[in-house]
Amino acid sequence: MLLLKNVYLNGAQKDVLIKENLIDKISDEVKADGVEIIDCKNKAILPTFCNMHTHASMMFLRGVGEDLELFDWLNKEIWPREEKLTEESVYHLSKFAILEMIKTGTTAFLDMYFYTNATIQAVLETGVRAAITYLGIMDIFDDHETSKHIDNAQKFLSLRMPTTRLQQGLSCHAVYTTSERLIKTFKQMAKKEDVLFNIHLSETQKEVNDCVEKYGKRPGRLLDEWGVLDKKSVLAHAVHLDDDEIARVGQSGAVVAHNPVSNLKLNSGQMPLQKYLNKGLKITLGTDGVSSNNNLSMLDEMKIAALSGKNQACDCCAAKVNTIFEMATVNGFEALGIKAGRIEEGYLADFMLVDLNNVFLNPSYNLISDMVYAADSSCITDVFCDGKCLMKNGYVKGEEEIVANFKRVCKDLL
Amino acid sequence: MLLLKNVYLNGAQKDVLIKENLIDKISDEVKADGVEIIDCKNKAILPTFCNMHTHASMMFLRGVGEDLELFDWLNKEIWPREEKLTEESVYHLSKFAILEMIKTGTTAFLDMYFYTNATIQAVLETGVRAAITYLGIMDIFDDHETSKHIDNAQKFLSLRMPTTRLQQGLSCHAVYTTSERLIKTFKQMAKKEDVLFNIHLSETQKEVNDCVEKYGKRPGRLLDEWGVLDKKSVLAHAVHLDDDEIARVGQSGAVVAHNPVSNLKLNSGQMPLQKYLNKGLKITLGTDGVSSNNNLSMLDEMKIAALSGKNQACDCCAAKVNTIFEMATVNGFEALGIKAGRIEEGYLADFMLVDLNNVFLNPSYNLISDMVYAADSSCITDVFCDGKCLMKNGYVKGEEEIVANFKRVCKDLL
Repeated sequence: MLLLKNVYLNGAQKDVLIKENLIDKISDEVKADGVEIIDCKNKAILPTFCNMHTHASMMFLRGVGEDLELFDWLNKEIWPREEKLTEESVYHLSKFAILEMIKTGTTAFLDMYFYTNATIQAVLETGVRAAITYLGIMDIFDDHETSKHIDNAQKFLSLRMPTTRLQQGLSCHAVYTTSERLIKTFKQMAKKEDVLFNIHLSETQKEVNDCVEKYGKRPGRLLDEWGVLDKKSVLAHAVHLDDDEIARVGQSGAVVAHNPVSNLKLNSGQMPLQKYLNKGLKITLGTDGVSSNNNLSMLDEMKIAALSGKNQACDCCAAKVNTIFEMATVNGFEALGIKAGRIEEGYLADFMLVDLNNVFLNPSYNLISDMVYAADSSCITDVFCDGKCLMKNGYVKGEEEIVANFKRVCKDLL
Repeated sequence: MLLLKNVYLNGAQKDVLIKENLIDKISDEVKADGVEIIDCKNKAILPTFCNMHTHASMMFLRGVGEDLELFDWLNKEIWPREEKLTEESVYHLSKFAILEMIKTGTTAFLDMYFYTNATIQAVLETGVRAAITYLGIMDIFDDHETSKHIDNAQKFLSLRMPTTRLQQGLSCHAVYTTSERLIKTFKQMAKKEDVLFNIHLSETQKEVNDCVEKYGKRPGRLLDEWGVLDKKSVLAHAVHLDDDEIARVGQSGAVVAHNPVSNLKLNSGQMPLQKYLNKGLKITLGTDGVSSNNNLSMLDEMKIAALSGKNQACDCCAAKVNTIFEMATVNGFEALGIKAGRIEEGYLADFMLVDLNNVFLNPSYNLISDMVYAADSSCITDVFCDGKCLMKNGYVKGEEEIVANFKRVCKDLL
């Protein structure tokens, strides 16, 4: 058991008792014997972040091919380098990605990439949570490829995860790279196993136009008619939905993973966040891969989600700080079926401690606003996941080795 | 003398010799006797930032009145609290603002606020550079008020600054709050003393519309016809300039201080950065006050300048990383007439050291891109201004006291 003594929670000093992996008790004073006590003077407790869209192992591509046209960027800079990836390199890249997540207060992520076993191993060792999805992609002209993906996905789903911190899921890349058969089959398989289905949806106007040309309808409507939209589907980007598609997504309960930095950087457009919120859509937040961000910081993502949300709505009252913070925390955890993202009794002990003497968190008039707009990683001193300490006083155990291995692996890939 | 040993500069290891306040020598190996040596293994040297638009003492308003309409925000939240300011509180607020700047790698700023003597004292004690301007505001229906401002400005300009780190200037708030007589007189006085003149220009479409209604022309054209535009004029915001005004600003050599975060947060609009760059305008970067940001980090400002620049131009090749970095560094220093912002022999020794083992600066493929998009304050280990160390290993001398005084002052103001 762990007792957080005199920690600020919603502006008042409290004691917080952690029993096993749960927040057991919150009150003005908790008395308990035989517990480890952490003196939290001048610290506040907050839920950790849930990054709902990333390709964690793309860390090696940070800063590669800046300011290029999309086609040049993918063809000349990104794809040739990704071809060099191996199981071993993805393991080290994933560990480094998770290190960056922990340093920025994230304890859960939804990942869509290759070499899933390597990423699963990295999650196991680092102590975070993740939904790791098997990714089906580029099968669109190749029925044999589709069948191969289905076999692989079946094998992937038959694995048993050794911890509740890990869950499996299935991903398809997008309607313009993936066949109808694969998308429908993956969703059916995901439904049968009650796991998440993840897909990029309407990231660019070109995707919408091409889809209308090919299928005679927009991607969101297509997915709905294919039976893909429900509460266990996570739609990454969803920048360009028309009113009909917004209604379909809303009725289905499907989750939107909003990636404002990536959308701005790649000139995909600005998702109409406030409009979606007004229509009752479930919105979560993700960083996308670092190649279009260029970090995995949900702090940066929150600030830019708020700013982009106001700009897109032409309304300085849009994209309010509490809404943005919930998108980055409890909304993501809920979408993953994890009872975390709030500091309340009975919730899982995924939390961070922040230093109220840090410049960015002063004058501490509105801590949530400070986290959304002002904070950076220097504010976060401690990170816990599932009741276990992953970062203490800014230090993650073994971080030097993780960085050194990352540097070594990148030399071969770049 | 100070010798930076084995420091990364443009991707190669160098020795950098600092003599007095100058970068004296850069080469593969510098041999010098009787110098203090700093081992810079795994560190890179970069120029520090110049924040070209701020109201430093607004630090106490961080997080106050989030997500409100502009009018409610100013009338109910901001202005009543600003009325409580005193010389003493502004001194402590300024010191805290400068602490935040140093922590985020900024060593120079252009300030527009009240109680200039208090801010000057804070600059003197903390060791940074600043252009402190006397601010004329709200005289528009009051000729007596205009005369009072002119007297005060004359007295302010007659002060002699005790260090080259400080320079004086004059500010007018904007054409909608300030009379023609005050703007013209302040510019003439600034010209006579060869100091900067600073004004908010065309921050909102409403400002433009109101100006057209009142004066029959747009604010940028008005200022040009009033003789206000030249190389020593800094135009904050400049979000809404038409082609005629862009040409006038360009021909005059006036400097634009771009504030993308503030413009997005207050829903002022997005400045057409790439268009201005294409037209040859001199663009610098500023944070504005924290009340509309909510920090003084030029790192955040660069990221959002790049993202907003691409989005506004509908072009992922716009707002390139090197351009953004120069806006935040050398362009600002040049506008202040300070030979800093580059790590080259003969430049002033304003520089930072960054930790190449920090997660955000890996794989170190493109350090400038890493600084613009990925870095946060945790990357910056040391900050020097005018040859003197202001931050060592992340610590600024006396920072605890600065924070404590800030907390105390804020209690009275909030």
